[in-house]
Amino acid sequence: MLAASASLLNIPVVILDVSSSAPAKQILSHPTTSHLSHIDGAFTDPIKIRELASKVDVLTVEIEHISVDVLEEEEVQARVEVHPAPSTIRTIQDKFQQKVHLQSHAIPIAPFLNIVEPSIQGLKEAAARLGLPLVLKSKTLAYDGRGNFVLRDLSQAQNALEFLSDRPLYAEKWVPFVKEIAVMVVRTAVGQTCSYPVVETVHKDNICHLVFAPLRSRDPQLAARAQEVAERTVQSLSGAGIFGVEMFLLADGVLFNCILTLKKSHTHCARVNWRSKGQILVNEIAPRPHNSGHYTIEACETSQYENHLRAILSLPIGSTALKVPSAAMLNLLGSSDNISELLDFTEFALGVPGASVHLYGKAECRKGRKMGHITLTANSDAEVCARLRQLLQRLPGGAPDIDLHAPEAPRPSSGLSHKQPLVGIIMGSDSDLPVMLPAARILDRFRVPYELTIVSAHRTPDRLVEYARSAAARGLRVIVAGAGGAAHLPGMVAAMTALPVIGVPVKGSSLDGVDSLHSIVQMPVSSNASNHGHRADELTPLQRGIPVATVAINNGTNAGLLAVRILAAGNPRLVRDMEGYMKELEKEVLEKVDKLEEVGWESYQVKRT
Amino acid sequence: MLAASASLLNIPVVILDVSSSAPAKQILSHPTTSHLSHIDGAFTDPIKIRELASKVDVLTVEIEHISVDVLEEEEVQARVEVHPAPSTIRTIQDKFQQKVHLQSHAIPIAPFLNIVEPSIQGLKEAAARLGLPLVLKSKTLAYDGRGNFVLRDLSQAQNALEFLSDRPLYAEKWVPFVKEIAVMVVRTAVGQTCSYPVVETVHKDNICHLVFAPLRSRDPQLAARAQEVAERTVQSLSGAGIFGVEMFLLADGVLFNCILTLKKSHTHCARVNWRSKGQILVNEIAPRPHNSGHYTIEACETSQYENHLRAILSLPIGSTALKVPSAAMLNLLGSSDNISELLDFTEFALGVPGASVHLYGKAECRKGRKMGHITLTANSDAEVCARLRQLLQRLPGGAPDIDLHAPEAPRPSSGLSHKQPLVGIIMGSDSDLPVMLPAARILDRFRVPYELTIVSAHRTPDRLVEYARSAAARGLRVIVAGAGGAAHLPGMVAAMTALPVIGVPVKGSSLDGVDSLHSIVQMPVSSNASNHGHRADELTPLQRGIPVATVAINNGTNAGLLAVRILAAGNPRLVRDMEGYMKELEKEVLEKVDKLEEVGWESYQVKRT
Repeated sequence: MLAASASLLNIPVVILDVSSSAPAKQILSHPTTSHLSHIDGAFTDPIKIRELASKVDVLTVEIEHISVDVLEEEEVQARVEVHPAPSTIRTIQDKFQQKVHLQSHAIPIAPFLNIVEPSIQGLKEAAARLGLPLVLKSKTLAYDGRGNFVLRDLSQAQNALEFLSDRPLYAEKWVPFVKEIAVMVVRTAVGQTCSYPVVETVHKDNICHLVFAPLRSRDPQLAARAQEVAERTVQSLSGAGIFGVEMFLLADGVLFNCILTLKKSHTHCARVNWRSKGQILVNEIAPRPHNSGHYTIEACETSQYENHLRAILSLPIGSTALKVPSAAMLNLLGSSDNISELLDFTEFALGVPGASVHLYGKAECRKGRKMGHITLTANSDAEVCARLRQLLQRLPGGAPDIDLHAPEAPRPSSGLSHKQPLVGIIMGSDSDLPVMLPAARILDRFRVPYELTIVSAHRTPDRLVEYARSAAARGLRVIVAGAGGAAHLPGMVAAMTALPVIGVPVKGSSLDGVDSLHSIVQMPVSSNASNHGHRADELTPLQRGIPVATVAINNGTNAGLLAVRILAAGNPRLVRDMEGYMKELEKEVLEKVDKLEEVGWESYQVKRT
Repeated sequence: MLAASASLLNIPVVILDVSSSAPAKQILSHPTTSHLSHIDGAFTDPIKIRELASKVDVLTVEIEHISVDVLEEEEVQARVEVHPAPSTIRTIQDKFQQKVHLQSHAIPIAPFLNIVEPSIQGLKEAAARLGLPLVLKSKTLAYDGRGNFVLRDLSQAQNALEFLSDRPLYAEKWVPFVKEIAVMVVRTAVGQTCSYPVVETVHKDNICHLVFAPLRSRDPQLAARAQEVAERTVQSLSGAGIFGVEMFLLADGVLFNCILTLKKSHTHCARVNWRSKGQILVNEIAPRPHNSGHYTIEACETSQYENHLRAILSLPIGSTALKVPSAAMLNLLGSSDNISELLDFTEFALGVPGASVHLYGKAECRKGRKMGHITLTANSDAEVCARLRQLLQRLPGGAPDIDLHAPEAPRPSSGLSHKQPLVGIIMGSDSDLPVMLPAARILDRFRVPYELTIVSAHRTPDRLVEYARSAAARGLRVIVAGAGGAAHLPGMVAAMTALPVIGVPVKGSSLDGVDSLHSIVQMPVSSNASNHGHRADELTPLQRGIPVATVAINNGTNAGLLAVRILAAGNPRLVRDMEGYMKELEKEVLEKVDKLEEVGWESYQVKRT
């Protein structure tokens, strides 16, 4: 994928990899360097690395298990620029040193300690200090979860030592995460960083299975916090390039702290401050393009690969913004030695809208081997999930987690909220339900995912705050709020979200709904009052206000239709559907015109329900 | 680009092209076929074509100037599947035969006739039949406008014959087009077609210079009509693959008809029916991926290249939908024999957000040669144009047309409408201007492009219809309409567009604005009246209505803010800006809290303007 990006920019690439079937070789044969473009050898072979270095201006890595000594030697002797810095690769190669490094830069990580001697006694001591369960990790050559053992109780100690035989080990406190998240960060040679959107990653048997972009959360600050941690992490390293920062997200309010005292030099422990919002702990860093960034090829303005090239070649860094509302990535792992099952599946995937198939051209298929991936893009999380569900239902080897990660959408009129709603319908009281139901019906008709619930401004003010503050971060794009009497709900919600809020005045027992209408629509401008008689230059400072899009009294239908129109701004399918709906309105009246003419107005029956 | 798409899907490709520096060769070296992947030779050489055919299952072309006899021979002998069909390539190769074919399939084209003998007399006869100006065209080997001569008066006849010396010619009535448009159409082997969005193409010296996607127009039906014509055109051909259909768009109401009588067998003439809306005439067809479809790589769910592969391999056709709101493509033509100027420019382009640089790796740069292209994607036409303007300002060789195709945005508070507005601010009367100006100020502040004008429901009803019906097709996403008294404007506009309409009730001399408020907000549901007391199952048939998002009386500020919130649904930058704005509101009040405490409420001065 890096070579494909390079070819777009006419950047000649030379690769070092074993065998003539190396995937990168398949899209890499620059005419001026065709005899040079592939060095057939192991990336651990110092002679081959030196040969590679002799042929290029800038040397980079796509895997960190490389001989750093040779890289350093080449760099020191100024034969070649190496990115990221060999010292960075050395730090990351040894997972224990990586943790020491992160701790010394005050990056939040789980408590961990060195195991000087891998023995039953050593594990007992670690358990005594860190508590159980704990994770035993090989310091080196660990990849996709190989070299990890979760020790739940000490009776497993012997098994653990056998499983991890002869490897240098360290122990880490087991982290009770609620989600794994990741951020790709691009770093220039002089240490400027820029991060991609935060994504959720789902692992299966320790291998990345799914990635969802962007991350949704009830916590509106989470994404910014995760990006801050990730960028700070990458700033602590040296050299240019793209880095994947994998993180754990803990549940809100969970106190995850280290109770060790730092007595012995081999005892390292991260201290984590308690926060009411979900803690973020860095798990590990990939000093290279990463699986959790594959979605950037189709979903972002610049792919992780292109930005890696830009960074190591000191070209301007490209925009990391998403260019689609929602994306997901599904890894294609071999289900057996036979690739044909996977190829049948990818042919099926070609029929799924928004699916981009990537096959890596690896010579041999093996069970569990990454053979390719599929990126899905769509207008909404709900659409991405519907498409992902189609894929998971046919995935070779099965996907038992399908209902967790790509749940079926509730049927229209089921009375159940969608898990990935674009519209939130809320009302101040259950008595408002008959007025708000038509809004739900409209959204059903236009196949717009929504949720429906009760939020009372006066009786559940905390719920109101939580609902409004989290709405955008959860992926909602429009809120429809109905309330009666001194109707505060729509205006208060609008004051606590940047989303458009549609207000439905509900008619109460007195005043015919005019009280609700005025309570909802008459949202003030908050400073320097009247607009009347002013010209452009007199209008500074700017007027300030909070708008509510008010519809007619009791008119949930129009609220639903307005929500659809708002969403249609980014969705041609909805524009077409709305135009079709309006044609139907016209047709319906024209039919009545005909009928009136046919039967005459004396016998015409006006239908009322 | 085709080879790059094939590599994603692990489809082995063999190319036929001259020299070891053929661009496709640079990203094509499949391990199992590396010794086979490039046949060095001319695509006009029958021996080489036969060699290519012997090595593949499916043969396709990226240029139509190939020996069709050989293709037919290979196909007939069932040695290889050829797409598109050789007969299609033969028809398209000869531009005169192409016109005959289009005419026989009732595709709208400009009047044309054969020139049996290229002589002054022959041209005079053509001019007598078609009128002047006319376009003399070489029947074969015409490409990027080579082989065309526009004959404006007969004194140029000798020049024309010399310029087009020895070529077989035909003449075409000169088309007074207002725009050139194009549609990429993918066709399956069995003749199903699916079209990409309609684009506007801009040519310079007969070579494609710019492409804008999607096409904007005052005519809401234009895109559908153009796609219909393009699909019908491609359905008339044979074989699978992607086709580019280039078309002329005439001005509304222009009568462009042929006055010839069909007397002689060599006189062919298309008859075009008059329509009040702009006529569409097919100019020519490219039976292959086309320059006007390059934008699909970044901007659509499936690129033209991948869909070409899918079509010729009988794989499912991928979605042709745009996945970004707006895109443009700029061709990179050599400015001289030296490519370095172009490379400096592309390095600059890497710093422009949403720009994707494609360099083709051609061995030699020449003035006017296509060396690559840049695709721009963005959230709006205005953003695409602002980015394009940056590029055109630095384009080697200059871009004298910059103000035409990427005009500078008007300064905030200039009182001028943006050429690519997302929001239309309209009002029933100029006396509403003081109420509506704050909406414009808000949009200035949030850098949202808008237009502002007067549309009176009662005094300019035709203008109202035209404005509302064309709004979406022109690229508007929100309309803000202000009106007073029996305020009909917002509701009538909402009845004629699928866009969200924000209504601003303007206070008149009596009734304190309550008349306008109720006129705007009380948009009815149009059938089966009341919602009260009904449960889900009682609500069929569905309620129907037309919504207007009403804000407070005289509150243009809130209308502007609501428009920003609506646009923010597809634009993270606007969400951040709106959150920042709301933080400022909070800060402003908190400062007043401090001041009240500081000076005491007896001496506190309430500011009023």
